[in-house]
Amino acid sequence: MDVHKQLTIGLFGFGVVGEGLYKVLQQTPSLKASIKRVCIKHPGKKRNAPDELFTTDKNDLLFDKDINVIVEVIDDSVAAFEIVSTAFQQGKAVVSASKKMIAEHLPEILKFQQDTGLPFLCEAAACASIPVIRNLEEYYDNDLLHGIKAIVNGSTNFILTKMFEDKLQFGEALLLAQQLGFAESNPKLDVEGYDAVNKWAILLNHAYGIVEHPDNILFTGIQNIQLSDAAVAREKNYDIKLVAQAQKLRNGKVAAYVLPQFIKHDDHLTFVKNEYNGVVIESGFADKQFFYGKGAGSFPTASAVLSDISALRYNYRYEYKKRYYHTPGELTSDFYVKVYISFNQLADVNKDDFEWIEEWHGGQDRNYLVGVLHFEKLTQHDWWKAQGISLILTPDPVIESIELRNIKKRSLELAGING
Amino acid sequence: MDVHKQLTIGLFGFGVVGEGLYKVLQQTPSLKASIKRVCIKHPGKKRNAPDELFTTDKNDLLFDKDINVIVEVIDDSVAAFEIVSTAFQQGKAVVSASKKMIAEHLPEILKFQQDTGLPFLCEAAACASIPVIRNLEEYYDNDLLHGIKAIVNGSTNFILTKMFEDKLQFGEALLLAQQLGFAESNPKLDVEGYDAVNKWAILLNHAYGIVEHPDNILFTGIQNIQLSDAAVAREKNYDIKLVAQAQKLRNGKVAAYVLPQFIKHDDHLTFVKNEYNGVVIESGFADKQFFYGKGAGSFPTASAVLSDISALRYNYRYEYKKRYYHTPGELTSDFYVKVYISFNQLADVNKDDFEWIEEWHGGQDRNYLVGVLHFEKLTQHDWWKAQGISLILTPDPVIESIELRNIKKRSLELAGING
Repeated sequence: MDVHKQLTIGLFGFGVVGEGLYKVLQQTPSLKASIKRVCIKHPGKKRNAPDELFTTDKNDLLFDKDINVIVEVIDDSVAAFEIVSTAFQQGKAVVSASKKMIAEHLPEILKFQQDTGLPFLCEAAACASIPVIRNLEEYYDNDLLHGIKAIVNGSTNFILTKMFEDKLQFGEALLLAQQLGFAESNPKLDVEGYDAVNKWAILLNHAYGIVEHPDNILFTGIQNIQLSDAAVAREKNYDIKLVAQAQKLRNGKVAAYVLPQFIKHDDHLTFVKNEYNGVVIESGFADKQFFYGKGAGSFPTASAVLSDISALRYNYRYEYKKRYYHTPGELTSDFYVKVYISFNQLADVNKDDFEWIEEWHGGQDRNYLVGVLHFEKLTQHDWWKAQGISLILTPDPVIESIELRNIKKRSLELAGING
Repeated sequence: MDVHKQLTIGLFGFGVVGEGLYKVLQQTPSLKASIKRVCIKHPGKKRNAPDELFTTDKNDLLFDKDINVIVEVIDDSVAAFEIVSTAFQQGKAVVSASKKMIAEHLPEILKFQQDTGLPFLCEAAACASIPVIRNLEEYYDNDLLHGIKAIVNGSTNFILTKMFEDKLQFGEALLLAQQLGFAESNPKLDVEGYDAVNKWAILLNHAYGIVEHPDNILFTGIQNIQLSDAAVAREKNYDIKLVAQAQKLRNGKVAAYVLPQFIKHDDHLTFVKNEYNGVVIESGFADKQFFYGKGAGSFPTASAVLSDISALRYNYRYEYKKRYYHTPGELTSDFYVKVYISFNQLADVNKDDFEWIEEWHGGQDRNYLVGVLHFEKLTQHDWWKAQGISLILTPDPVIESIELRNIKKRSLELAGING
């Protein structure tokens, strides 16, 4: 068959992912990919590879003319961006797993690719073992992509599963996640949704051609979810998941966010428990498709990186078709959402933000309401993020402006309230 | 970005899939793919496209020098193979949805590709909207693919779901499937497993590099499954599914078949109900991954064909890495399986085929046993396919020869029988 490119790799990072990669490439000569040098931070550590492989000077890799691929699997997003920038300048293809770096530098990374024609692959940066980026890029090219929703953070999903199934308190569930290695010792990035929104920024690009800084995508995490919310969800026959969602509205614009959401038991995402990730893609021709797998961890991540390396052999690159060949998607805040809010005291809720409230519940410990508000209110105000308040989207939360009046009428009639 | 190949398509077949394709390509100029001629069988029919597009002479497409891609979505596998053969000779890329034709002509189709270097894409031929071929081809390239199991036939899955959930008799469920358009009016191809084994022959190639005629892959369908089997499954907390399975044994060879199987409720395939398809891929690094979607129907099929057309624009072709760059997988019959057999009279069961029997059940209507036999017995004898007998694999049915003795001892102890 074809003669393929010989890949000579400069690897940044030799943690569990990096080391796993090194071993597999050594054992698979058919891949025609070998690691020439590895750049590490701490030279002192004992490592299972020859000493001469390692350097602490990034330029030993970046300016080595033999090296045609830079693979970076490091934690430091500032350093990662520097590495990637220089790699492009030096004419090298790049494989990256740094979601934060990629999410925050999408415009630059796109420009590098346009200017140089070099590939930049990052399958490991979102949902690790689930090949979601490549599938969005290649497979939903021509379909009308109605929507995509996903569980992209394994730690928070693990915590929610434990709160639901074992009735653990949030703090207990978090501790268990940390003990099992599913959460960072500083878990804020996972728990408060930062990790999820970074991944979502990357996926919005491959899904819709949207290039938006994660700061401009509304998100929160699960830090305020309480056991009493889980109890309400159970009564209503729902699960609670931290859902990253994007939905194309009738005007062609895209509603997108990362927020806790009630999930019906016939929703595909119900199936996604513990540290797993899942993606539901809804498209005009293919109907709903569901992808499920491990979203983090050394092997799933190494597996994704490996697949990118393999793809480089036939010069695969993302085409960003939705961005360059079509009119790119555009985020909008002009829609309404139906939300569940639980709170200790009513005074903590900004009732003026609501179009209407269709359900009230007062109890001994905890109170909640269900109502509809304009999405913009959530971006303008942050009372709903305060401690003691949980906001959870209802299933199918998005209400388009054009439908608002009819839905209000129906909802209030159903609730037995004269609107 | 890149300048891509302009695709000029000759389309064979203008049924729901073909017509859908035509419309989408017309509406999407960015694809740079247009249909120049369409070859049809029956010129009289009214069609929603200009008359001059159509011809009944296949050579009008195959020998047109402008046409560089042949897309065939016809039912007749003999005609399809002729079309594909000539297309290759004429230097045209091919997109095909004809699973029977592909499954029965794998060696020739592989040879055509090797001889000509032309691409042949067939994502629509297995699990339609689920991009399983491309993912197996590209994504599980370097992983150790431990196993893959799948529900690849929607009609049988629909029937089994209705037998389980609505307690319909097989015949009633089949009738419903036909009324809803999920099964052919002659449903033998679906119900007796022919369709599933054709798809499995195709997927075994992309998964393991195995090229085997479907006649050499052991299969049956669900024609003998009775409501009483569903009742036993329910008692044991199982579902029954028609499962296509392949598993790598310790000696590197592959066990593969398409047979009814008991499925535990924590198995991903439990999630696959009604006419849907699902694929579980188990690999060394990525752990288990699950893909789910519509496996048939005009739109899901058109969506898969479209994705292949789009891929041709950057000269994508299957590399068949597992076949050409590694030692291809090899099917084996040298393993054991644990099976459930239900029957009317014990005389219908060939007890000599069993290594041991660990469970017996006699009842008023129906009797069953659970036992272990060498897989070869199933290929040599066909008493288990006779009317009135159902064979259903137990969960995790495969027992490797090397483990047989220990498993026999444990199983019989558990069953309270001295082995």
